Amino acid sequence: MSVVYAQGFSTAGVRGGISSVPGKKDVTLVVNEGPLFVAAGVFTANRFAAAPVQYSRGVVASGRAKAMVINSGGANACTGETGLAQVYETAAHAASVLGSDFASEDVLVASTGLIGELLPLDAVFAGVTKAAGALASDEAAGQAAAEAIMTTDTKPKTVTLDGTGYRMGGMVKGSGMIAPQLATMISVITTDAVVSSELAQEALKTGTSTSFDCIDVDGCMSTNDTVILLASGASGVEPDVDEFKALVAQACASLARQIIGDGEGSSHDIRVRVTGAESYEAALACGRAVSASNLLKCAIYGNDPNWGRVVSSLGTVPEDVAAFDPNNVTVDINGIRVCDGGKPGQSRELVSMAEREVHIDIDLGTSGTAEATVWTDDLTLDYVHINADYES
Amino acid sequence: MSVVYAQGFSTAGVRGGISSVPGKKDVTLVVNEGPLFVAAGVFTANRFAAAPVQYSRGVVASGRAKAMVINSGGANACTGETGLAQVYETAAHAASVLGSDFASEDVLVASTGLIGELLPLDAVFAGVTKAAGALASDEAAGQAAAEAIMTTDTKPKTVTLDGTGYRMGGMVKGSGMIAPQLATMISVITTDAVVSSELAQEALKTGTSTSFDCIDVDGCMSTNDTVILLASGASGVEPDVDEFKALVAQACASLARQIIGDGEGSSHDIRVRVTGAESYEAALACGRAVSASNLLKCAIYGNDPNWGRVVSSLGTVPEDVAAFDPNNVTVDINGIRVCDGGKPGQSRELVSMAEREVHIDIDLGTSGTAEATVWTDDLTLDYVHINADYES
Repeated sequence: MSVVYAQGFSTAGVRGGISSVPGKKDVTLVVNEGPLFVAAGVFTANRFAAAPVQYSRGVVASGRAKAMVINSGGANACTGETGLAQVYETAAHAASVLGSDFASEDVLVASTGLIGELLPLDAVFAGVTKAAGALASDEAAGQAAAEAIMTTDTKPKTVTLDGTGYRMGGMVKGSGMIAPQLATMISVITTDAVVSSELAQEALKTGTSTSFDCIDVDGCMSTNDTVILLASGASGVEPDVDEFKALVAQACASLARQIIGDGEGSSHDIRVRVTGAESYEAALACGRAVSASNLLKCAIYGNDPNWGRVVSSLGTVPEDVAAFDPNNVTVDINGIRVCDGGKPGQSRELVSMAEREVHIDIDLGTSGTAEATVWTDDLTLDYVHINADYES
Repeated sequence: MSVVYAQGFSTAGVRGGISSVPGKKDVTLVVNEGPLFVAAGVFTANRFAAAPVQYSRGVVASGRAKAMVINSGGANACTGETGLAQVYETAAHAASVLGSDFASEDVLVASTGLIGELLPLDAVFAGVTKAAGALASDEAAGQAAAEAIMTTDTKPKTVTLDGTGYRMGGMVKGSGMIAPQLATMISVITTDAVVSSELAQEALKTGTSTSFDCIDVDGCMSTNDTVILLASGASGVEPDVDEFKALVAQACASLARQIIGDGEGSSHDIRVRVTGAESYEAALACGRAVSASNLLKCAIYGNDPNWGRVVSSLGTVPEDVAAFDPNNVTVDINGIRVCDGGKPGQSRELVSMAEREVHIDIDLGTSGTAEATVWTDDLTLDYVHINADYES
């Protein structure tokens, strides 16, 4: 059901002809039918933010949006004034085909694909027009929407959750160029709860910080990352604030986890959990350092529980970022303590690497109790194949 | 001639039986015959510094050393008190077989290989004894020394340089786990110039900062990086300070460049030069961000001059680290301006990727004139093969 699980939304995913892959759907339209038109968003921190990111930041600042256009097949990044003009024209075209209730400034835009090329605007317009005519709120429409935003993704990624008297649904695309902060991805989460734009923004910011901000496929931050939360209020239910925030965080966590499960060429999902830290920031820095190690990621691909590559990555974190004594550090891989007090522990032969999911648990051994979890993928021959051949 | 090009040095590279590769030479001995016994060193910044690094830091602090033992086949890292005891025993054994002129504290030790396992000390001792009996100052000895320090390296890497009335020689091993600060490598540079330990240390520190500190094969910092400069004074010539420092820098640059040329599985050497920056640090941060991009490195492997992956990496450098306006940035790949003012420039079709060496020239377009150069390799199928199968 994806983005139409919540009441008050319709969607469509169609082919406009932007993507060079024959038959690939490449335009998604999501429409909020109200009665509320609340919108919140979180975007890439990349300084070469794509034109649609620059534009949509402005829309989200108003706290309100009625529709969103997403295209795959082109990122519209590093395209200058002309690229920005293309976004405005796309929003205007969407508003015109959606009818007199819609103004340009009600329409969010997001793009994904190759950097540095303008969009074929005719194909974008054709897709938007077709999508506006195909809007629906059923299972098939939700599925088509999630498919049309895919690029190197191998499967659509969606989530549905139930609050007390209200619903939440979502979809995400993302597979490569995935790194904190925010992965290279575009995500739309919808809810029929009655919430203010302030609560929506706060819930989304918090929810992304421990999910999309804590995954790393390849250490590369995109120019186009966009996460949007839309609320229609159609349930008529004003949610408990804590429950609502928890539900948004759960939706983000589910979608982020699905990105890792579909990481380009990956054969293992790796969960790096760091405990015994003096602060969350220290634990997070350690988790990120370990999850960014190409050598470790290659070893995991080779089913080698190579703890030497875990601690050598950990050792690159500056002391002023994460205080710990190397002699107090333990590393467990899939439950086996392979490194104990900075020295060899149990034999790595005892570690089973048969499962897709690999758990690396690091205890820094300080007096602190802070912890953080980062997810990453292994580095495989297929990752190199995909990224030596694919232009993005 | 490697480390014996300078007068006053003898060396040997032999098999002690540490390495699991049949017949692989794995113990190198370098002896400074004086009359000076000056030693300087630069070591890894990794907090899990290997036992030989911890030990040799202390030797270098005295400014003096008469010999150095290097073993491949085992890193002696994360091996605790027992590992440290092994280093002391190795130094003591070397001193005893070298004769009554040598004390334990005159002997430097360096190791490279798998992290987290103790060394087979019998094999180390056997190698040191054999090497002490094979010491020579000829071409063959210099070559054998450079071969015995290799691990995944495919070729020995050496340098010889002439100062005014004195000589300098050197060797290095390093191929993977190569990242700033300092690559995973072990290097010995020798000279017969008459220099103080203070000048030696200063020259080495400066020389490594623009060479070994500016290469990155895979973003992974090792536990064992060691660069040693030994001076015998055998030429009797006290060098011009500036010339001497320039010569040390040139030796470091040559050896560092050779590491990139032999980067694990690499098919392209990539020079990332950043100009138009407000400071060297800003330029260096930009160069490192670009050279660390897995996506860019895969693209170069695929002979794709993908400037979108250059600017998306550049865009991850925080503004307070490197001030620049994305709209003023230009990117040339092999002489073709593919990105001009943050937008598409000339067609990427014009870029020839036939050569092994790839030049990426980035101008940040600020009013500053600072610049920095970082070298890296492409990310290839062979890199993944090597590191999924090899334990380090």
